[in-house]
Amino acid sequence: MKASEIRELLKLLDQPDIISFAGGIPDPELFPAAEFAKAMSEAMTGPRASQALQYSVSEGYAPLRAWLADHMGGIGVACGVENIFITSGSQQALDYFGKLLLSPGDTAMVGWPTYLGALGAFNACEPRYIPLDPWSNAAPEDLRAEAEAAGGAVKMAYLSADFANPTGETLDAEGRGRLLERAEALGIALIEDGAYQALRYDGDPVPPILATDIARNGGIENSRTIYCGSFSKTLAPGLRVGWVCAATPVIERLVLIKQAADLHSPTLNQIATERVAREIFDDHVAGLRRVYGARRDRMLAALSREMPEGVTWTRPEGGMFVWVTLPAGNDSAQLLERAVREARVAFVPGAAFFPDGSGRNTLRLSFSCADEARIDEGIARLGRLLG
Amino acid sequence: MKASEIRELLKLLDQPDIISFAGGIPDPELFPAAEFAKAMSEAMTGPRASQALQYSVSEGYAPLRAWLADHMGGIGVACGVENIFITSGSQQALDYFGKLLLSPGDTAMVGWPTYLGALGAFNACEPRYIPLDPWSNAAPEDLRAEAEAAGGAVKMAYLSADFANPTGETLDAEGRGRLLERAEALGIALIEDGAYQALRYDGDPVPPILATDIARNGGIENSRTIYCGSFSKTLAPGLRVGWVCAATPVIERLVLIKQAADLHSPTLNQIATERVAREIFDDHVAGLRRVYGARRDRMLAALSREMPEGVTWTRPEGGMFVWVTLPAGNDSAQLLERAVREARVAFVPGAAFFPDGSGRNTLRLSFSCADEARIDEGIARLGRLLG
Repeated sequence: MKASEIRELLKLLDQPDIISFAGGIPDPELFPAAEFAKAMSEAMTGPRASQALQYSVSEGYAPLRAWLADHMGGIGVACGVENIFITSGSQQALDYFGKLLLSPGDTAMVGWPTYLGALGAFNACEPRYIPLDPWSNAAPEDLRAEAEAAGGAVKMAYLSADFANPTGETLDAEGRGRLLERAEALGIALIEDGAYQALRYDGDPVPPILATDIARNGGIENSRTIYCGSFSKTLAPGLRVGWVCAATPVIERLVLIKQAADLHSPTLNQIATERVAREIFDDHVAGLRRVYGARRDRMLAALSREMPEGVTWTRPEGGMFVWVTLPAGNDSAQLLERAVREARVAFVPGAAFFPDGSGRNTLRLSFSCADEARIDEGIARLGRLLG
Repeated sequence: MKASEIRELLKLLDQPDIISFAGGIPDPELFPAAEFAKAMSEAMTGPRASQALQYSVSEGYAPLRAWLADHMGGIGVACGVENIFITSGSQQALDYFGKLLLSPGDTAMVGWPTYLGALGAFNACEPRYIPLDPWSNAAPEDLRAEAEAAGGAVKMAYLSADFANPTGETLDAEGRGRLLERAEALGIALIEDGAYQALRYDGDPVPPILATDIARNGGIENSRTIYCGSFSKTLAPGLRVGWVCAATPVIERLVLIKQAADLHSPTLNQIATERVAREIFDDHVAGLRRVYGARRDRMLAALSREMPEGVTWTRPEGGMFVWVTLPAGNDSAQLLERAVREARVAFVPGAAFFPDGSGRNTLRLSFSCADEARIDEGIARLGRLLG
């Protein structure tokens, strides 16, 4: 079952009697719609409208870049406006990272499993994938020799360190440090995808890898970590506003890629996002944490109650996903067909997230869009199907 | 002088005493700002806001695709919704065409000069360029052999048939037919960039090449012409909404590219654009034609009055540009430095638009953003500099 087939199947999930834990999308009920409406209305009033509707610069709207530089500072990343580049969602950042770093035959280190959209973006560059494992003791020279034998070089490592899609897992500080050391030993770029970073429901924040890199190497200009973030999970995805935070030579090359690729991200969207972020970001995200955190708790409790023996799952400290592992020999793609037909419940089969299509006994559950009663009922249906 | 150097120079042109004919941007005074403000306010009211701020499909907002299918029908291109794909401006379409059609070493036929942004987009794929000449009698087998000798194959021809950037010239029906025959003989895709198509100030419209292709080959599904359009010159560029019209297999491949590249164009921007296009497109464009047409007239009259003998220029039937050729031996990049410093007038040196950097004695003037008195004064300053 390919990603495209899963997309087609997921399109069928609009029927109201299906309880879907499939989509990894934010709950639209939680969008700050009134604030965006107000911000847009202001941006479209009087002479300001000419700016909002006109071409703008490829690097992004300066006040939004400034807000993001402050925001990154707030999570431990000391940087300036010149270290921020605005993208059309973080998916665009991933696409550009592929263009910037990968040639066909090169090796990219990624989680096993990892974010499907990252594989989609990188695949255009025809890389070879190897598992990213912070705890591995594989010698860098061996990895380099294998990459060369495969017709390229090790060029990047990619991960989401906080509440990763699809597993929900967070890499601890020690793991982050080891990963950075490994990237340094290999001389490669380390891509840190912070899409879910703000959505922590308990436990203490772990500093971004980029913050550690800066601390170790004396500033962002000496860092090899390239951080990408997104407003899609915190404010709203439909405006397509994300960002990259990195050393200025990286930013400058991304700006050239964007000039050729789509000139710039929409002006109005950046103006409105800056206004809404400046006015409500922290309070709004605090509200999201309460709602999504309660849904996570409900799903974990339901799984404990309903799953038969031999089924295991992650206990994420944030984000939108729980990752379930069925006993060996189960096939979650086959299970999905039965689940939709017989039990009217849906999820994403895990194999789609593995570069080699392994992990057939895994599946991803999202708790972001289901209310708590439906979480109970959906997990109960899944439990009966597996029981 | 490279494109990036010109961009840097053009950034200096914000001083109010400089009369700039450099930027190819629409006049912001002419944006339908009130209509966009109203459309956005409606889209952001009540439960509709959840849709406007949520993820949407990669192929684009269905009502906008439907409006565009009708619009294309109105300019002679019989097609359905399934033949329309929404892009983030037509620059994104050009980037995707490169990804879809070109591998390093392949040959692309382009105008000599041609649109700078097309070269920027295609360059990422490292093609070889050869001049696109509808009147050439070069044998297809010779072109194919040359392309093969250069390490690839002839893969595409690209042109703007109406009021091209940078020359302002329009290809007549006979030339369009010959170009289509040539593309058929070579078995290649023909990219028709319709960015300025709606901005005709006099003369009769020439049917798009895609319309001719459809008529000759029995329908859009049999056509090799891929049309891209944009709202940037007719409604507003800052929202980044463009489209592609082509056979469905092309559309389907573009949708897959977009899924991996940026998921989808912003939802709200598409909703608002559909609303504004549906309500005012024809009337609004009629108004633009009057204003821009008068500016073109004024610039052509001023050129006749002010240019010394030996200087020639195009007489465009639409668009935003007049293309000036100085006597051989002149260097318009050197002239630009003098023009900005001594005469406080600006333009774009022509060499940037030639894949091989030739055309040093040419320059591009835009009449879209200057009022008529400043056109008279600016062309007079340029005349004195050349006289």
